[in-house]
Amino acid sequence: MWRDLLSVGRAGGPGTGYRRYAWTGVDRELRVWFADEARARGLAHEVDRNGNQWAWLGDPAAGDAVVTGSHLDSVPDGGAFDGPLGVVSAFAALDALRARGALAPGHRPLGVVAFADEEGARFGVACVGSRLSCGLLAPDRARALTDADGVSLADAMERAGHDPGALGPDPERLARIGAFVELHIEQGRALVDLERPLGVASAIWPHGRWRFDFHGEANHAGTTRIEDRRDPMLTYAHTVLAARKRARLAGALATFGRVTVDPGAVNAVPSLVTGWLDSRAPDAGTLDDLVAGIEATATERGGRDGVTVAVTRESHTEGVTFAADLRDRAARLLGGAPALPTGAGHDAGILSGAVPTAMLYVRNPTGVSHAPAEHADEGDCLAGVSALADVLEGLLCR
Amino acid sequence: MWRDLLSVGRAGGPGTGYRRYAWTGVDRELRVWFADEARARGLAHEVDRNGNQWAWLGDPAAGDAVVTGSHLDSVPDGGAFDGPLGVVSAFAALDALRARGALAPGHRPLGVVAFADEEGARFGVACVGSRLSCGLLAPDRARALTDADGVSLADAMERAGHDPGALGPDPERLARIGAFVELHIEQGRALVDLERPLGVASAIWPHGRWRFDFHGEANHAGTTRIEDRRDPMLTYAHTVLAARKRARLAGALATFGRVTVDPGAVNAVPSLVTGWLDSRAPDAGTLDDLVAGIEATATERGGRDGVTVAVTRESHTEGVTFAADLRDRAARLLGGAPALPTGAGHDAGILSGAVPTAMLYVRNPTGVSHAPAEHADEGDCLAGVSALADVLEGLLCR
Repeated sequence: MWRDLLSVGRAGGPGTGYRRYAWTGVDRELRVWFADEARARGLAHEVDRNGNQWAWLGDPAAGDAVVTGSHLDSVPDGGAFDGPLGVVSAFAALDALRARGALAPGHRPLGVVAFADEEGARFGVACVGSRLSCGLLAPDRARALTDADGVSLADAMERAGHDPGALGPDPERLARIGAFVELHIEQGRALVDLERPLGVASAIWPHGRWRFDFHGEANHAGTTRIEDRRDPMLTYAHTVLAARKRARLAGALATFGRVTVDPGAVNAVPSLVTGWLDSRAPDAGTLDDLVAGIEATATERGGRDGVTVAVTRESHTEGVTFAADLRDRAARLLGGAPALPTGAGHDAGILSGAVPTAMLYVRNPTGVSHAPAEHADEGDCLAGVSALADVLEGLLCR
Repeated sequence: MWRDLLSVGRAGGPGTGYRRYAWTGVDRELRVWFADEARARGLAHEVDRNGNQWAWLGDPAAGDAVVTGSHLDSVPDGGAFDGPLGVVSAFAALDALRARGALAPGHRPLGVVAFADEEGARFGVACVGSRLSCGLLAPDRARALTDADGVSLADAMERAGHDPGALGPDPERLARIGAFVELHIEQGRALVDLERPLGVASAIWPHGRWRFDFHGEANHAGTTRIEDRRDPMLTYAHTVLAARKRARLAGALATFGRVTVDPGAVNAVPSLVTGWLDSRAPDAGTLDDLVAGIEATATERGGRDGVTVAVTRESHTEGVTFAADLRDRAARLLGGAPALPTGAGHDAGILSGAVPTAMLYVRNPTGVSHAPAEHADEGDCLAGVSALADVLEGLLCR
């Protein structure tokens, strides 16, 4: 099952990263894989209005369903585990429960889910599938999102055979879910430092993405005197360094991982530099103060460079504290696994507002994520499947 | 003539910039325009082994030819004047000489030239056509240059119907040329400040392009602790600011106008940031010291960021001092026009090593170049044509 998935959407040979973006041909291959896995287990497969895939054992209409899963898409040149490990482990845990004979007649419905477009790598907004279902992203806004080639989400979806007109909140479907458990590779070194194979999630930091547009004046790099320039690259560079410093002082995170330049010629002073800030902090107040401080620094420096700065919040996710009872129950079943906070957003975080939700983490020896070096040892993965099966088994008895 | 050219390769409507890149469909349109202008005047049209276009009045094989012209390609979203003004003025000056009856029988051969790929906007090396002809760019290196889509210059040339196997030095052709005069829009404010419509070139600063590769480690922007990061965007940002400061102190120029990021995701710390430095200085020693200083700063900061820095010189042009007799003669004919140095490279600078060469500048009221605001008033353009005709007339008598 894992091996079938390994080759889909890989940029090059072994050791290279994945490019699994929403509503592409690669996305279609991943969807076929999911449907095949569901069919092979005799599960009922369905795609909801927002493009999320579900595989059901038992009738979800009975309500109080137990759902597990994650997502299959990736960041550009991402690793193999972020997302897919949760979906593969979900199917494997179901297999384990069957092998144990743990699925007693009359058990709660059990669902496996793969949420659409979690990373937001193509259209710039993360967790699109789960946000739409929870009513946290307006369908009109989602449809109007565009990729780097100017293709709208609506067009991309339509070309992939999914009706963009159907997008919208799905409260009925969510109301049938009694518990959601997402297994995920850890994206830092906490479990490595603690020498533990598994952990549970305590909280997700509030986080968001802000677009900084630095407007200057295009000019000839060889003839324009320094004092006549309005060079937005300088303001951008100053802002990158200021963001890092402010984040460090605030005990938070700030990253510029994407930048574009107009006209982007080696021998032209740019007219426009656009940088995207990803920022996360332990609480909402710290995050707000941090971003406001970065914007103030950018504007102040822009004044000196003859550059105007416009900041647009492109996405924002509230902080999440996971359901304490479910978390503690999972931690006990995992032999007192540590509870960890994270700066990473997840579909589980989105769902937690509507459904009691828990997350399990599997140790990542490199600590690296969103890159090819992301890794989990096979033994830890199997321990994760077994622990997920334990948690599901405890939940499935009515 | 000017009007026919105005619509070719314009990105949008009036007021927008030009995208006239070498060996594209737009380049083909420009070449057809040049051939048509030659034909309409009964000039012999030829394309040399390096793709430069020539239009001849009289037989160049007679030797001691007088040549004028410039280039037709542009930087991304460039202005209408940089290059085309020199080619259009060349044809117009020839018309003026005919109208004056100044072309006595037995005059020296007169040529109009449009050099290929002067800006280097597509393949990253400037003055490709004139460098190849002068033996200042190895044919193998030229053929292997690639554009942003990975298309090689050789492939692009072949698709455009030009044989890349023919590239190489052209000493026989150059030996036939007794003088070259390039008219060009001024790319700064010196003539505006001096309240003069025209000037002549005294010198071109040595200049070059250096690629800075900043190698770090890709990682998750939401989960990687600041102290665990090796973020090359920070090293890049520090280098941009250091380059500007060092250039200012040295009385030189340094610009980062192009940057690319891998993987370039908003929520990923980059693995690689590549920035291109364009730098120019009054003399070779100052330029060498400046670039060495920028590299040292980048490497020092890289050490603190866990980032390695590799610097590659992609192109370099020696400083040029134009032929004093030709320059002084042109300045006298222009009523004592001022002689100006420039940081901009030109085909005239490349040719000056092989042929006595002069440049005329036409005032640019905005001072802006390589951008849509680049401009010359009609009266100044006509004065430029008239002055160019005067200079050519003086040269044409044997």
